[in-house]
Amino acid sequence: MRYELYYWPEIEGRGEFVRLALEEGGADYVDVARTGKAGMRTMMTLLDGRRVPRPPFAPPFLRAGKLIIGQTANILLHLGRQLELAPADEAGALWVHQLQLTVADFVAETHDTHHPIASSLYYEQQRAPAKLYTRYFRRDRMPKFLGYFDRVIGKSGGPFVLGRRLSYVDLSLFQVVEGLRYAFPKRMRRVEKTVPRLIALHDRVAQRPRIAAYLQSDRRISFNEWGIFRAYRELDG
Amino acid sequence: MRYELYYWPEIEGRGEFVRLALEEGGADYVDVARTGKAGMRTMMTLLDGRRVPRPPFAPPFLRAGKLIIGQTANILLHLGRQLELAPADEAGALWVHQLQLTVADFVAETHDTHHPIASSLYYEQQRAPAKLYTRYFRRDRMPKFLGYFDRVIGKSGGPFVLGRRLSYVDLSLFQVVEGLRYAFPKRMRRVEKTVPRLIALHDRVAQRPRIAAYLQSDRRISFNEWGIFRAYRELDG
Repeated sequence: MRYELYYWPEIEGRGEFVRLALEEGGADYVDVARTGKAGMRTMMTLLDGRRVPRPPFAPPFLRAGKLIIGQTANILLHLGRQLELAPADEAGALWVHQLQLTVADFVAETHDTHHPIASSLYYEQQRAPAKLYTRYFRRDRMPKFLGYFDRVIGKSGGPFVLGRRLSYVDLSLFQVVEGLRYAFPKRMRRVEKTVPRLIALHDRVAQRPRIAAYLQSDRRISFNEWGIFRAYRELDG
Repeated sequence: MRYELYYWPEIEGRGEFVRLALEEGGADYVDVARTGKAGMRTMMTLLDGRRVPRPPFAPPFLRAGKLIIGQTANILLHLGRQLELAPADEAGALWVHQLQLTVADFVAETHDTHHPIASSLYYEQQRAPAKLYTRYFRRDRMPKFLGYFDRVIGKSGGPFVLGRRLSYVDLSLFQVVEGLRYAFPKRMRRVEKTVPRLIALHDRVAQRPRIAAYLQSDRRISFNEWGIFRAYRELDG
């Protein structure tokens, strides 16, 4: 089956967590809105919901045969089963999903570093609250979330969150580390020393053949100042 | 089996979405941290994670036999199966979970109306950005989320999101309407007129015998100014 991923074509954003799973899983997929204007129109039609019985609230969403699945973590819940990127037993599947939802919480907070007031405003319209928000984010939230994942890896024995077996949440944690290095390079240099198991996980994921090939390909979008992770120097430190 | 729910004892918060499912499902459960100091200590021990192989990041979490399940939507994914509050087929289960994750996004944004800068600060320390945030929340985000759920109910034929069959997300939508009425009474009076199917769903949930009995019991905590939904008059309008 050919999966259809629907996401904004110019950013990694939340779509990237799905792309990494599709790539590592060796799935046949098309990134529909990146194929051109017709693809973008199809995405907007599915989103507007008039012709869809169960419309998603927002991208990303995945068409898998007759299913249209929205919400990043929900897509990964499905792909985890289909692509064997999660345990088949309920306890393991719930644990990986729980970690993914914690990643989602952290990603939402990361987004708010540049948009603490409203997504509908430009960053430049909320710079002062963004600086204030980010002060607490860098000091409290980054070490809390990253430290948590580092401890989880430690408990499993590593190198991945489940121990020796890779799961989709490892791919997401790779992306989180990549994004934070882009957005907060100064802060990350210090924080990384405190989470060596998470950094080792990141490095292991980057070396997986399918991920390494993907990162070199033009399917991988570069970080930029429209996505979740943005390099605003004044927010780093 | 007796479920053990772990959540902060003095607020409805995210724990309430779990409580409503346990109540409607007729589950045998104990709200551990509300049983006294020993219960609270147990919760903090499980959270600190030293004795737990798979520690949750934050409350709420649920102990179900040997499982410890964290993340509200993940707990509901499990309880939906166990208490028959979600479809058994994958398509239906994913759809209900997708809606629950959209509820979770909306709840997080609702929380940020009074805490747009940092959860570690008091509301009084972030009143100015809270007013600004809430202006966009009331104008854009409330109608967008509530309108979406109203359309979803319309597509199913109602009265619930799946049509005639109740699922856990209906219970959560009941709680969202209750909370918004508490936090933004003025604004809700106007918005409610635009989402009649959602309000009808709320009313149907409130009349279910187990929910009605629960709401009258002392197991139901009142809304207050420590939770997600807070009645700050200056944020309403």
